Amino acid sequence: VGEPYRSFPLEMMRYGEGGVSGWGSLCGALNGAAAVIGLVYPGKDGSRRSELIGALFSWYEQTKLPQFRPAQTVAPMEVPASVAKSVLCHLSVNRWCEASRCDAFSPEKRERCRRLTADVVLKTVELLNRSQEPSSHFAGLSTQTNSCVTCHGKAGRADVMVKMRCDTCHTHLGKCPE
Amino acid sequence: VGEPYRSFPLEMMRYGEGGVSGWGSLCGALNGAAAVIGLVYPGKDGSRRSELIGALFSWYEQTKLPQFRPAQTVAPMEVPASVAKSVLCHLSVNRWCEASRCDAFSPEKRERCRRLTADVVLKTVELLNRSQEPSSHFAGLSTQTNSCVTCHGKAGRADVMVKMRCDTCHTHLGKCPE
Repeated sequence: VGEPYRSFPLEMMRYGEGGVSGWGSLCGALNGAAAVIGLVYPGKDGSRRSELIGALFSWYEQTKLPQFRPAQTVAPMEVPASVAKSVLCHLSVNRWCEASRCDAFSPEKRERCRRLTADVVLKTVELLNRSQEPSSHFAGLSTQTNSCVTCHGKAGRADVMVKMRCDTCHTHLGKCPE
Repeated sequence: VGEPYRSFPLEMMRYGEGGVSGWGSLCGALNGAAAVIGLVYPGKDGSRRSELIGALFSWYEQTKLPQFRPAQTVAPMEVPASVAKSVLCHLSVNRWCEASRCDAFSPEKRERCRRLTADVVLKTVELLNRSQEPSSHFAGLSTQTNSCVTCHGKAGRADVMVKMRCDTCHTHLGKCPE
């Protein structure tokens, strides 16, 4: 489909691995996918971009991953699946380590991240294709985030700017005093 | 300096704003800066890239920002500074809201993020220039992170993969039982 895709410096995106060079921040598969969505919807009005990124990130938070299974001849390893509950690499990997009882530097973990990346790519392509249909709608934030943002977000006290799921880190939620 | 900089789709990087489309994950200034570092050091051997990103992210965690002050005629606003203690947008903005007593959607907050972005750009350019000197060294992780990773990292129990500062979220640290 020509430019800007043809000349795009793909090798640059290696910076995203391990939540940006092993820092454990945003999952590198999501960072790459969000960049591609930003390439397709690059304008200052980011409403369509925001819808797609929101649908992708919410799916990632809530879905048991990885789902992709390569051919036995390529990678015969058994890789358990887990729900990340977070778009952050550090948390996503920790949830998986708990579920799999494998360590964070094991061959199983590396294979898990490869397969999860395949899942994220597939989902991103589906969302991008669907976004070309004029009346397409996309899922919003999780109930948890929506409920917190009612009080803390822009329309309320405006003391918090966030869309990530809240209760993964703020474990007091559910007993929020307010 | 020609390609790949000349044809780079700059508008794509808008996806990073607000920790990726308002999700509050990795600070968009750092995401853009790490991408530029990835563009200059794109190889599979990411050791130089990792050093530079590490130096930039550690500096961001620990430094009172913003430092940049535009000309009075451009933006006459007073903008307090704060230490983010985190590379995550949600936490960085919250620390700043506490210090400034401004809300997370205020004009002051938007100006704070603009100035902080100028600071991150300046620091990134300094690091990239310095990295061209053959014997240049860069600061490592914070003492806090190093101390936790001694037990939990690759050489220890290997149950955690992270470089972000630990005690910003794990507030029990210092009284870690092990």
